[in-house]
Amino acid sequence: MSYKVYEELKDHMKKVALYDTILSLLDWDEKVMMPAKAAEYRSDQLSLLAGLQHEQLTDPKIPDLLEKAEEETKSLDPESPEKTNIREWKRLFDRASKLPTSLVQEKSKIQSAAHQAWLQARKENTFTTLQPNLEKMFAISRQIADCYGYESNPYDALIEEYEQGITCAEVLSIFSDFKEKLVPLVQRVADSNNKPDISFLQRNYPFELQILFVKDVVSRFGYDFERGRLDGTEHPFCTTLGPNDTRITTRRSAENFGSNFYSVLHEAGHGMYEQNLDTEHFGTPRGTYTSLGIHESQSRMWENLVGRSSTFWEYWYPKAKQTFNALEDVNQVDFYRAVNAFAPSLIRTEADELTYNIHVFIRTEIEIALLNDDLKVSDIPEIWNQKYKEYLGVDVPDDLNGCLQDIHWSYGLIGYFPTYTLGNLYAAQLFAKAEKDLGGNLLSLFSEGKFTPLLHWLRKNVHLHGQTYLARDLIKKATGEPLNPSYLVNYLTKKVDTIYG
Amino acid sequence: MSYKVYEELKDHMKKVALYDTILSLLDWDEKVMMPAKAAEYRSDQLSLLAGLQHEQLTDPKIPDLLEKAEEETKSLDPESPEKTNIREWKRLFDRASKLPTSLVQEKSKIQSAAHQAWLQARKENTFTTLQPNLEKMFAISRQIADCYGYESNPYDALIEEYEQGITCAEVLSIFSDFKEKLVPLVQRVADSNNKPDISFLQRNYPFELQILFVKDVVSRFGYDFERGRLDGTEHPFCTTLGPNDTRITTRRSAENFGSNFYSVLHEAGHGMYEQNLDTEHFGTPRGTYTSLGIHESQSRMWENLVGRSSTFWEYWYPKAKQTFNALEDVNQVDFYRAVNAFAPSLIRTEADELTYNIHVFIRTEIEIALLNDDLKVSDIPEIWNQKYKEYLGVDVPDDLNGCLQDIHWSYGLIGYFPTYTLGNLYAAQLFAKAEKDLGGNLLSLFSEGKFTPLLHWLRKNVHLHGQTYLARDLIKKATGEPLNPSYLVNYLTKKVDTIYG
Repeated sequence: MSYKVYEELKDHMKKVALYDTILSLLDWDEKVMMPAKAAEYRSDQLSLLAGLQHEQLTDPKIPDLLEKAEEETKSLDPESPEKTNIREWKRLFDRASKLPTSLVQEKSKIQSAAHQAWLQARKENTFTTLQPNLEKMFAISRQIADCYGYESNPYDALIEEYEQGITCAEVLSIFSDFKEKLVPLVQRVADSNNKPDISFLQRNYPFELQILFVKDVVSRFGYDFERGRLDGTEHPFCTTLGPNDTRITTRRSAENFGSNFYSVLHEAGHGMYEQNLDTEHFGTPRGTYTSLGIHESQSRMWENLVGRSSTFWEYWYPKAKQTFNALEDVNQVDFYRAVNAFAPSLIRTEADELTYNIHVFIRTEIEIALLNDDLKVSDIPEIWNQKYKEYLGVDVPDDLNGCLQDIHWSYGLIGYFPTYTLGNLYAAQLFAKAEKDLGGNLLSLFSEGKFTPLLHWLRKNVHLHGQTYLARDLIKKATGEPLNPSYLVNYLTKKVDTIYG
Repeated sequence: MSYKVYEELKDHMKKVALYDTILSLLDWDEKVMMPAKAAEYRSDQLSLLAGLQHEQLTDPKIPDLLEKAEEETKSLDPESPEKTNIREWKRLFDRASKLPTSLVQEKSKIQSAAHQAWLQARKENTFTTLQPNLEKMFAISRQIADCYGYESNPYDALIEEYEQGITCAEVLSIFSDFKEKLVPLVQRVADSNNKPDISFLQRNYPFELQILFVKDVVSRFGYDFERGRLDGTEHPFCTTLGPNDTRITTRRSAENFGSNFYSVLHEAGHGMYEQNLDTEHFGTPRGTYTSLGIHESQSRMWENLVGRSSTFWEYWYPKAKQTFNALEDVNQVDFYRAVNAFAPSLIRTEADELTYNIHVFIRTEIEIALLNDDLKVSDIPEIWNQKYKEYLGVDVPDDLNGCLQDIHWSYGLIGYFPTYTLGNLYAAQLFAKAEKDLGGNLLSLFSEGKFTPLLHWLRKNVHLHGQTYLARDLIKKATGEPLNPSYLVNYLTKKVDTIYG
């Protein structure tokens, strides 16, 4: 049976994806390859294509096609590719049409101004430089939330952009439950007098060797270099330019071993999700990742649950020692403890896997309060520093190391932060189920260099479904229960016991 | 005074250039960066944008805009940017509208098939595998020439695509005159018993060091790495992705020193033409190179007239010796003679600067005969081998080393080959004038590492004009006389005297 209108709609929407991937190439090239002075013309190229993409996505013929395609496919299984795609296209189109063009343009203008102001504020190390633009950004975000509509909290309308199907109330409840269990663990670590030595991680690990070593590791995980590549950039990222083209990057500088190494494992985790989506459905929701939280669960799983496990290092440490002279006098246990050291810190992107979530709680609490007018933008530095003292026991010395560190708010990414911690929670829960399904010996497989059983489990239970299920349903389907923070709590407790016990 | 319609037309045509540059990025990325398995989707991205570019270029509103813009600007100087642009847009549009869409589509189909057949024929080392598709290609090229129209020879209509303003008769007359003087020189070299030793060029020159060294050289020429980059590819090329983004490539393999080194000098010559066009007019004819012959004159000038001069090596040889162990026992004179060795050979792209032109004569003679039905495609191998024996005294062992070596015909690039030799002729004539204008000490400046005086002369007399003048007029304006092959003849005679005397 063929669905004529559905196919027409699919061709139309796949063209949106074609534009998206060309935009992604322009962006990847700008960050990785483009000569320094070429930025201005690149922005002309980007804006031409962004306009075409938007026209294609908001074509007035879409509602009619959607309606007819729904009719054509009404007898299909709700989990069929056709129903999945129609459901998500409809949502995309509905959301897009709720926003007046003027609001979209206004937000884009504020974005540019706020981004410049953020850079300038960082230079001056003064939040007040950013404040006026950030006020505009929160005001327009609130307007946008009102356009989308919501039941109980404007934040619901924004978080849906990144994590469909979860509400502000649910996030707060999950986080509060989780926080209660985390804080004592952080305290235990702070009080411990058995702290790992991490000084040797700052030694000289030649960059070229780091790259060779880490490419070896992620290849063995299953990241496919014939369908990807690894390059150096300012900030690490992962981007997909086609069904067989998912590229990752890492920092160009050598820095310490851990920072580069774990960053590549993280991006390769994102990359493997993209590479293991169903290529047959590329360019449609059925072949697209289901939420940012699930995406983050994949990157964090390979970075932490795999890459910081003791059996992982059982396999890789002898190779690391052969590769790096800096490790000559370091034994495996000390190395394992060092890469698992926990310490309250000021900067989210450098935080350990325990305290990282607390950085996320702080941002989430603040942005919810701001969006609900329970807090003024001008109060951000004060509340930020208060919370860092209260939750992590650290004193924030200045805005650069405090509320100016992240790009998200100035870029209008409000509702994005919770997906980082949701990712950590999903990762622990999925990993526990994979371990169970694989007979409880997943970790011991790592010590033999066998990582593909985990990838295959993820491929089957997570990746291949694309957007057939929302994150919440995918987790239930893959693990047999709804999101349950105790998996991550147990994992972290065990880690604290092992390293600080 | 403002020209409203002209400005509207300019905005429209600059959008064509935006599409062109995005297409160029997709192409550059495919050749330089793209993972092996991503080719299929890349061709979808390319064809989407090629379609949009074509629509923009053939928009039916253009003739009306052209007419009104002409009227608006009729009192302007014919050399003004406005008049230059209108003249060339008109020509572009007229030529495009002379071709029925069916013919364009048909040619594109034959291109794909012929390209595949060419690859296959090379694999099998048999011309007959390519023959049927090549017959189609020459037949459709003749049809295209007929659509364009011409006065005396269908070849005129095709060469105009690459070298506007020159005719088949003129090319043949210039080449015949030139050939008469070249053949005795080739004979003198063949008869000489004072041949340079070139064996040390085949020693090991580590690729990374080659790249460092050659980047140093072309930076000093004036190739701007802040507006460009150098990467490794299968086949070297130069491409422009924006007014401040002109990238060059070289072969990824080390091979011998000369092949990589001179290839980069060549591409940097192309690159410097692009980088020194007037960026204010980027995306319009006024800011675009004027012909392929002039483009080639720039690449060949830096490769040969500069890079193979004795004073060039006076400056660079001590640095080369410091860089490459392979040169430890080689003195500067022997090195200079080696990189200037002449020898009849089978492959055009590896030919020396003397015999290179003879490779071009052979192809030009054959393609003119084919287009005029004075020769059948099936006769190509026989006539090819005959001419190589007659002009160069070499026996062609097989089609791979003979008529299957170049991609041009299977790609439909008929009328393109002559521009290679025209480039050599323009280069010698321009160089002689630059030398005169700079007080006759251009070559001695090289020995002090001063190459920018030549670049500035070229910028002022060639680059900055864009398409204000056709190649023939540009040469006259820059050198004070029409194209005159004796400059190249004199240069080559002197070279033969020096190296083989």
